[in-house]
Amino acid sequence: MALLDDLRWRHAVKAYDRSKKVSREDIEKIVEAARLAPTSSGLQPFSLILVENQDLKDKMASGALNPDCMRDASHILILAAWDKYTAERIDEVYDYTTDERELPRGRFASYTDKLKSIYLDQSPTDNFAHTARQTYIALGLALAQAAELKIDSTPAEGFDNKVVDEVLGLSEKGLKSVSLIYLGYADENRDWIRNMKKVRRPKEDFLIEYN
Amino acid sequence: MALLDDLRWRHAVKAYDRSKKVSREDIEKIVEAARLAPTSSGLQPFSLILVENQDLKDKMASGALNPDCMRDASHILILAAWDKYTAERIDEVYDYTTDERELPRGRFASYTDKLKSIYLDQSPTDNFAHTARQTYIALGLALAQAAELKIDSTPAEGFDNKVVDEVLGLSEKGLKSVSLIYLGYADENRDWIRNMKKVRRPKEDFLIEYN
Repeated sequence: MALLDDLRWRHAVKAYDRSKKVSREDIEKIVEAARLAPTSSGLQPFSLILVENQDLKDKMASGALNPDCMRDASHILILAAWDKYTAERIDEVYDYTTDERELPRGRFASYTDKLKSIYLDQSPTDNFAHTARQTYIALGLALAQAAELKIDSTPAEGFDNKVVDEVLGLSEKGLKSVSLIYLGYADENRDWIRNMKKVRRPKEDFLIEYN
Repeated sequence: MALLDDLRWRHAVKAYDRSKKVSREDIEKIVEAARLAPTSSGLQPFSLILVENQDLKDKMASGALNPDCMRDASHILILAAWDKYTAERIDEVYDYTTDERELPRGRFASYTDKLKSIYLDQSPTDNFAHTARQTYIALGLALAQAAELKIDSTPAEGFDNKVVDEVLGLSEKGLKSVSLIYLGYADENRDWIRNMKKVRRPKEDFLIEYN
């Protein structure tokens, strides 16, 4: 099915049926869509955390806007951005890239030097503002992939970042949670929004054209 | 074709053939993918600016990291986020939504009151940090839609925001440019990256699992 049909099909599900699990094969495809997402300078400055463990879900439900979703979703994908850029992180990505392309390491040195001069002069707060933005590209593509597979999903910023970071030990990994996706199959009786019309701002308002 | 195939097919094109134009029908689909993107609380706090006008492209090329792309792309889509949240902007979106759903206006008042209490207490800088993040969801979905149509594209943050905002008169509209997409057909001789292997961080590094 075409992407536009998938985007029209999906909605932010409000309640999940805890008895229904997403298959491993489908989870792999959703992870792959996020992994293939383009990012600024190809740095992919984030990790994807996949949680199926019920105990961790229960702990992360504390402070969540919709704790039932946190507890009942089949899987949760947390998008966690690098807390800051470092020379090591930049070099690791570019060394891997040149190795994979069978090019000499340092082939893109003038470019990585420029990235370092920009990012390492910034505060960690400014770095994180940039890494966090990149995660949203992957968020959207993961949601689109779930829709293609007819898997229900909910993107969410409404959770307690401190709780999630602590439960998952993210700060030791140099990561900070940004958003997450609940994945599973809706509990159709409790998913109160599913029969409401999908509404987006009209094109005439959303789009500005200069022909 | 499936989304994963489309994501593997695309790459950030480095040079465009100015003589080849994207059809209006295809542009409409790319715009629609961005319009259908999910956003925080459904506010869609950004506009999409579509530029085909050569004079505007030439002006926006000043300060662009790849000015040739800015000048030669068939179309340019600029993602421009709300400079801040206001009660009027929030009410306009929710009034439209309730009207479309044939619900009484104010049906979601407790929710919009909560949004206002959060966002209107923040600085415009913090508001914009949030609105800007949302644009990246639409960025990714627009790129995926272009790939489905076998249209070449380049996502870019490398341009002079002040120049683009001024050329497009964005500040008077309460908008600030965040990123853009060059759309068109590659000049295969000058698109030096097209025969290089697409590289992403390996799954073992990118994904962290808690089973």
